[in-house]
Amino acid sequence: MLEKISVVKFEEKESKNPFSFKFYNADEVILGKPMKDHLKFSMSYWHTLCGEGTDPFGKGTIDRTFKGEDELSKAKSKADVAFELMSKLGIEYFCFHDVDIAPEGNNLAELKANVEIMTDYIKELMNKTGIKLLWGTANCFSHQRYMHGAGSSCNADVFAFAAAQIKNAIDATIKLGGTGYVFWGGREGYETLLNTDMGIEQDNIARLMHMAVDYARAQGFKGDFYIEPKPKEPTKHQYDFDVATTLSFLRKYGLDKDFKMNIEANHATLAGHSFQHELHLARVNGVFGSVDANQGDLLLGWDTDQFPSNVYEATMCMYEIIQAGGFTNGGLNFDAKVRRASFEYEDIIYGYILGMDTFALGLRIAAKLIEDGRIKEFTENRYSSYKTGIGEKIVKGKTTLEELEKYALELGEVKVESGRQEYLESIINSIMFSV
Amino acid sequence: MLEKISVVKFEEKESKNPFSFKFYNADEVILGKPMKDHLKFSMSYWHTLCGEGTDPFGKGTIDRTFKGEDELSKAKSKADVAFELMSKLGIEYFCFHDVDIAPEGNNLAELKANVEIMTDYIKELMNKTGIKLLWGTANCFSHQRYMHGAGSSCNADVFAFAAAQIKNAIDATIKLGGTGYVFWGGREGYETLLNTDMGIEQDNIARLMHMAVDYARAQGFKGDFYIEPKPKEPTKHQYDFDVATTLSFLRKYGLDKDFKMNIEANHATLAGHSFQHELHLARVNGVFGSVDANQGDLLLGWDTDQFPSNVYEATMCMYEIIQAGGFTNGGLNFDAKVRRASFEYEDIIYGYILGMDTFALGLRIAAKLIEDGRIKEFTENRYSSYKTGIGEKIVKGKTTLEELEKYALELGEVKVESGRQEYLESIINSIMFSV
Amino acid sequence: MLEKISVVKFEEKESKNPFSFKFYNADEVILGKPMKDHLKFSMSYWHTLCGEGTDPFGKGTIDRTFKGEDELSKAKSKADVAFELMSKLGIEYFCFHDVDIAPEGNNLAELKANVEIMTDYIKELMNKTGIKLLWGTANCFSHQRYMHGAGSSCNADVFAFAAAQIKNAIDATIKLGGTGYVFWGGREGYETLLNTDMGIEQDNIARLMHMAVDYARAQGFKGDFYIEPKPKEPTKHQYDFDVATTLSFLRKYGLDKDFKMNIEANHATLAGHSFQHELHLARVNGVFGSVDANQGDLLLGWDTDQFPSNVYEATMCMYEIIQAGGFTNGGLNFDAKVRRASFEYEDIIYGYILGMDTFALGLRIAAKLIEDGRIKEFTENRYSSYKTGIGEKIVKGKTTLEELEKYALELGEVKVESGRQEYLESIINSIMFSV
Amino acid sequence: MLEKISVVKFEEKESKNPFSFKFYNADEVILGKPMKDHLKFSMSYWHTLCGEGTDPFGKGTIDRTFKGEDELSKAKSKADVAFELMSKLGIEYFCFHDVDIAPEGNNLAELKANVEIMTDYIKELMNKTGIKLLWGTANCFSHQRYMHGAGSSCNADVFAFAAAQIKNAIDATIKLGGTGYVFWGGREGYETLLNTDMGIEQDNIARLMHMAVDYARAQGFKGDFYIEPKPKEPTKHQYDFDVATTLSFLRKYGLDKDFKMNIEANHATLAGHSFQHELHLARVNGVFGSVDANQGDLLLGWDTDQFPSNVYEATMCMYEIIQAGGFTNGGLNFDAKVRRASFEYEDIIYGYILGMDTFALGLRIAAKLIEDGRIKEFTENRYSSYKTGIGEKIVKGKTTLEELEKYALELGEVKVESGRQEYLESIINSIMFSV
Repeated sequence: MLEKISVVKFEEKESKNPFSFKFYNADEVILGKPMKDHLKFSMSYWHTLCGEGTDPFGKGTIDRTFKGEDELSKAKSKADVAFELMSKLGIEYFCFHDVDIAPEGNNLAELKANVEIMTDYIKELMNKTGIKLLWGTANCFSHQRYMHGAGSSCNADVFAFAAAQIKNAIDATIKLGGTGYVFWGGREGYETLLNTDMGIEQDNIARLMHMAVDYARAQGFKGDFYIEPKPKEPTKHQYDFDVATTLSFLRKYGLDKDFKMNIEANHATLAGHSFQHELHLARVNGVFGSVDANQGDLLLGWDTDQFPSNVYEATMCMYEIIQAGGFTNGGLNFDAKVRRASFEYEDIIYGYILGMDTFALGLRIAAKLIEDGRIKEFTENRYSSYKTGIGEKIVKGKTTLEELEKYALELGEVKVESGRQEYLESIINSIMFSV
Repeated sequence: MLEKISVVKFEEKESKNPFSFKFYNADEVILGKPMKDHLKFSMSYWHTLCGEGTDPFGKGTIDRTFKGEDELSKAKSKADVAFELMSKLGIEYFCFHDVDIAPEGNNLAELKANVEIMTDYIKELMNKTGIKLLWGTANCFSHQRYMHGAGSSCNADVFAFAAAQIKNAIDATIKLGGTGYVFWGGREGYETLLNTDMGIEQDNIARLMHMAVDYARAQGFKGDFYIEPKPKEPTKHQYDFDVATTLSFLRKYGLDKDFKMNIEANHATLAGHSFQHELHLARVNGVFGSVDANQGDLLLGWDTDQFPSNVYEATMCMYEIIQAGGFTNGGLNFDAKVRRASFEYEDIIYGYILGMDTFALGLRIAAKLIEDGRIKEFTENRYSSYKTGIGEKIVKGKTTLEELEKYALELGEVKVESGRQEYLESIINSIMFSV
Repeated sequence: MLEKISVVKFEEKESKNPFSFKFYNADEVILGKPMKDHLKFSMSYWHTLCGEGTDPFGKGTIDRTFKGEDELSKAKSKADVAFELMSKLGIEYFCFHDVDIAPEGNNLAELKANVEIMTDYIKELMNKTGIKLLWGTANCFSHQRYMHGAGSSCNADVFAFAAAQIKNAIDATIKLGGTGYVFWGGREGYETLLNTDMGIEQDNIARLMHMAVDYARAQGFKGDFYIEPKPKEPTKHQYDFDVATTLSFLRKYGLDKDFKMNIEANHATLAGHSFQHELHLARVNGVFGSVDANQGDLLLGWDTDQFPSNVYEATMCMYEIIQAGGFTNGGLNFDAKVRRASFEYEDIIYGYILGMDTFALGLRIAAKLIEDGRIKEFTENRYSSYKTGIGEKIVKGKTTLEELEKYALELGEVKVESGRQEYLESIINSIMFSV
Repeated sequence: MLEKISVVKFEEKESKNPFSFKFYNADEVILGKPMKDHLKFSMSYWHTLCGEGTDPFGKGTIDRTFKGEDELSKAKSKADVAFELMSKLGIEYFCFHDVDIAPEGNNLAELKANVEIMTDYIKELMNKTGIKLLWGTANCFSHQRYMHGAGSSCNADVFAFAAAQIKNAIDATIKLGGTGYVFWGGREGYETLLNTDMGIEQDNIARLMHMAVDYARAQGFKGDFYIEPKPKEPTKHQYDFDVATTLSFLRKYGLDKDFKMNIEANHATLAGHSFQHELHLARVNGVFGSVDANQGDLLLGWDTDQFPSNVYEATMCMYEIIQAGGFTNGGLNFDAKVRRASFEYEDIIYGYILGMDTFALGLRIAAKLIEDGRIKEFTENRYSSYKTGIGEKIVKGKTTLEELEKYALELGEVKVESGRQEYLESIINSIMFSV
């Protein structure tokens, strides 16, 4: 299905060749590092190879039949397409759920066996292409049994199933050399408080995570665990609402040493935050991990998972990531899918080009913002009063309410300076449109 | 201005006397306690005596002139009206900001002196009427100097002013026997991340809170400190977004022993949560403290602070409070104001009657829900699988991923039961409309 | 699957029998009419018999296998269940899409033939049970071909398919004696303005509607055509955003004589309006037609289609309907589905009981509001200044800006009266909790 | 207060001079017209000279004292500042409410006299500077008397006051040569339906508008009347919700010949639409008039009226305006204000530079999009099936449901083409970042 498409290359930005990058030049060095190492692009197996374009009111539009006589052969053909697609796009990482890569089978035993077979197969493709696994995960939300949750299920048997799937997905992740393992709690939450005890449910999720950490570390896993916050959808209210909520949970249960955040743009806005807010918050709390790059529609109330096209957001994302020291175990995974009416494989290529060029622009502009220095300098100056005098005493914990009152009484009034938001926004535009 | 209104009394619910309670009967015993002790109604000084009914596009509509030749005399007349109003409504508690009760003066020294005078005056009124202080607080958000925040200000001098105001407000709270002190961070947040360092700002807020706790405890304050979460407005993004975010903050900075939550209905919904969610979350985390009772409009994106009229919300609120063991130091403060077009003192009376009757209904129905027992029993049964067998091992931390996998592989598939949301919602309506 | 459930009857409200109505008493006379004639309850074929409980992240949970060796036999078994369910619940009307009642087949010709067969079959069931058709419609949104719209498709062939389906659905509606035909434009809108010409698209929708009216009237259809407004979902932006937008469209294209509104509660709130707002607006513009009764979740941004449980909303809905003179051709169709985790047929029964009791309460309370008269009297008095003097001249069009200026200059200032919102809200609660 | 700031000039985009334009070059010719004639920038008198930076929780931060011994002298100094500001920024138009330019006085007679005096004064300034009036309006929303509405007030005397203010504002607009007169119905709506009759209220608004048109046309006014849609704020629900709602109203009351739309970006998003949607809808309905340029924050639920900084939105706005044939009587009025913490006149300059440069970029990019032609060509091709065959018959109204059914039955199935959203979004980014 990708026969007609050749390798996508970087061309000048005026090029009208739709199958070329205009801004992403993998080996071009920016701030001392090739673009590809800053960006660590990753393909999501699910949105790229699995969804059929259904929506709550419509049937599938995308043809997902893969060659093969049985489910396993088809899964192998699917993997072939996945790796061909990554190769043509120059994407070096991928992410998956257990059921994305392997047929679910009729029971857990079959799923386990299928995952084993498929990871063997994928490992070979990885060796051939040099493509690496960014992170793995288990799908503990689609099957009927997870209707009331996985780790938070009211049913202990369901908890056991989730534990089993997670164990296998951890094994698969380790086998394929993944540097991360993700928990996305799509069903960890509630539909109605009338039948819910949040205390029991959250305690149980924590128990499951502790077991997962213990198991993985015992198997030698050195990578990061991630929680991917999302406030709602499919569940009415999800426990990992946003970065702050998740931090609160990790701190309560002593999980903050092993877990970092996998931050998704569209989940940020569904929670009422900007993408940058979530990244910044994770950064200042030392839990920035990985990114699920996509874009929502702020006029819609659900997860649209569009390919990112907004360069403002990509810029501020890269600005935060660079300040966080760049990715270590994490990367920039496109948790994005083509629109239902963009139903051809050609559209998937367009989608990735759109997303990769958008983040390439984001990187280029963020680097210029840093080199320019005006934004950072302005911000640092704003807080300079905390470096001396009463400010220094405050920061060093060497003062009291009594002393501060005395100081304030003597001051009379304060001279406050303008925040200069409009000036700073002009700097952003000036730099953006000078790339 | 309240001359024409006599004491508001409980009458039968068919009464058409607008100046009577139809559902609130202060001394009627419900679940072993008089209604007034369950509800601990409190008047907010600011919305009841201070606002003029302005909005971002319109001038004041409410006449707030009080008798008096100078600011202090007027403040005393205002206090007289406040206590007359509470007396006529049978409200036994009140809450205030420093600048609600005392003229702001020309500088901090004058404010301090005015607060001293006014707390003397109010103390007398309290003694005369038996009315008590629920909690006090400092207004560190209205003055220009707080445009960039108080504890989170980029300016150390502003921090010092906030500290001074807080010290005085703590002193006033102790003097008047208040059992709580509230932090509402209306300006603790940011307008734009372009000029903001969230790390410094949140560290500083924590420093301020630690100083406040140290000071108050040294003065013998035994009450609770509260944070009142709110996600936005006036500031674009506020740090105390919701209960979970605030918990995350308290845990990071070791403040979770001294602080509880003051939960406001309208703030909950602005953050994307139901009022009950926030109360339930605080309860299961042991930080439920006090309530700011009001009602928002879910079709509007700002804090409307309406008097509560929705009995569903009041019911679930009281259901949570009863399960939390009832109020200890906290109470049910009406952080609510009449609509701009309800500009007469008569309307304030109507507003309180509306709010008090709504919560009286909420209490009556919550009590019936508890006596009925079906909701609770259903919920407890849902989790019964965690009391024996594999479930018990999970809860007691005596199992591992390996064991759970083995267990799941043997199970084959799980039998999940219906969540019965529609049935449970019918129970609520049946009980509500049988009171 | 309904064997175990007997006919659901009205019992006293304290009854704990979950399979009984507590508030809906079909033949009880309210305001001179039996409850069932006020409410004209209708079952939606799609949500009750067709959906499987899938969501964007999860598989089906509800068993929808019906007895039968081929698709047509299964469709007949499904119809049997539908009529058994209505009979047991005492529901006298139903609504359907073509593809709900008949197998879609492999092409349009097969669908047409299947609809013919199934309407014969259903006609018999109707004769046996006395159950009537409220309205019919065609599903022009689920099939892949409608991805860019039906009447608004950029592809003329797709337009022709939609026309064909609509013709057949009109025929089916007439055959079964339906008194209404509905257009819901789930795909009539756009995903991105980058590829869209709203002018052409809306002109074409109007052309399709004119053809439909011409055809149906020529076949002797005397019923109403309805548009069902919805702002978004599945499409990013739908043309029939809300009642006002739809009115604008009908007036532009001269369709306002034949079309009325089918108003859905959850669609109202997705558009930023209360349910009552949409009903009131339709009423004062003479286009109130029918109701799709359900309930959304204002904290979620998608169409949850829950069974109605909120008695406030049901009350204001019935208050508007009674003032509109009650239903003529329309009725109260439950466009509602059980939650994904309420996956048993038992839950469907609970859902209908919940919805029917909620609207029964709404009717009882609305009737009391009308009998009480205080709300209506207050409102009428507010506008009394338009009955005499300058007000009368304004209303009769007998004055000018010049005269009004002269009048105002002489007045000096105006005496405005309070809107008394809080007082009016207390009346609502008093009457609600005295039923 | 503007002494230190000299005339703001166009400089190269790498310039770090904060008081220069980087993208707006007034006389540069784009698509055959100087930039300034495409953009017709206008200063809003209210946000630029009147607001004090208050918000619902905070006092003013901006110093608005103007030199002068009495109110009229101060109003004249304010006008001097206004014209100096426009001159320094090279802005050629302005807009005002009656009470922005003239002291309100103690009654209507004084306001009328003050407006007379101030329009004389402003006329001179206009003659001196060559600056022109874009449109005028009356503030019928801030004064207490308008709490229940102006044209929609339940009080006929208030209606008369509104009529008088509007008459005077029309006179002032004509006197100053304005080419537009705006109705913004900030209080035309309701707070609660419990006391509201939408039928009477909307009839009355229409009566007022008819009188205004009759009066103005009799005085020789040839300009446009505009309605400025806004869904809410300050009023809970406003009648002019959005463009479609307003069109519905105009068509009902036969006002669609005299009225066009004044579309505000922030009002569009508050109503759930993109800015482009509202412009496009007005364009295809022939009612595009003028623009209130600003920017909202989609994560906030109120009107932030920020200076526009988002070049995507400005681009699509200019793309629609160019396709509408450009401005005739309308223009691009900055209904925008500096943030509360940007409290210096310097910040106002920064704000205008930000807004003007943003729209200059929007114009440059829109022009390139048009010259490039790919977007337009793609869209036109999509609808090509309506130019021949069955499509042509549909468009010309020469077919019927029967014929279309016959056609569809013969077709078998339809071949639908991809919408190519991702490809089109890549074109936008390529062109944007090649300016």
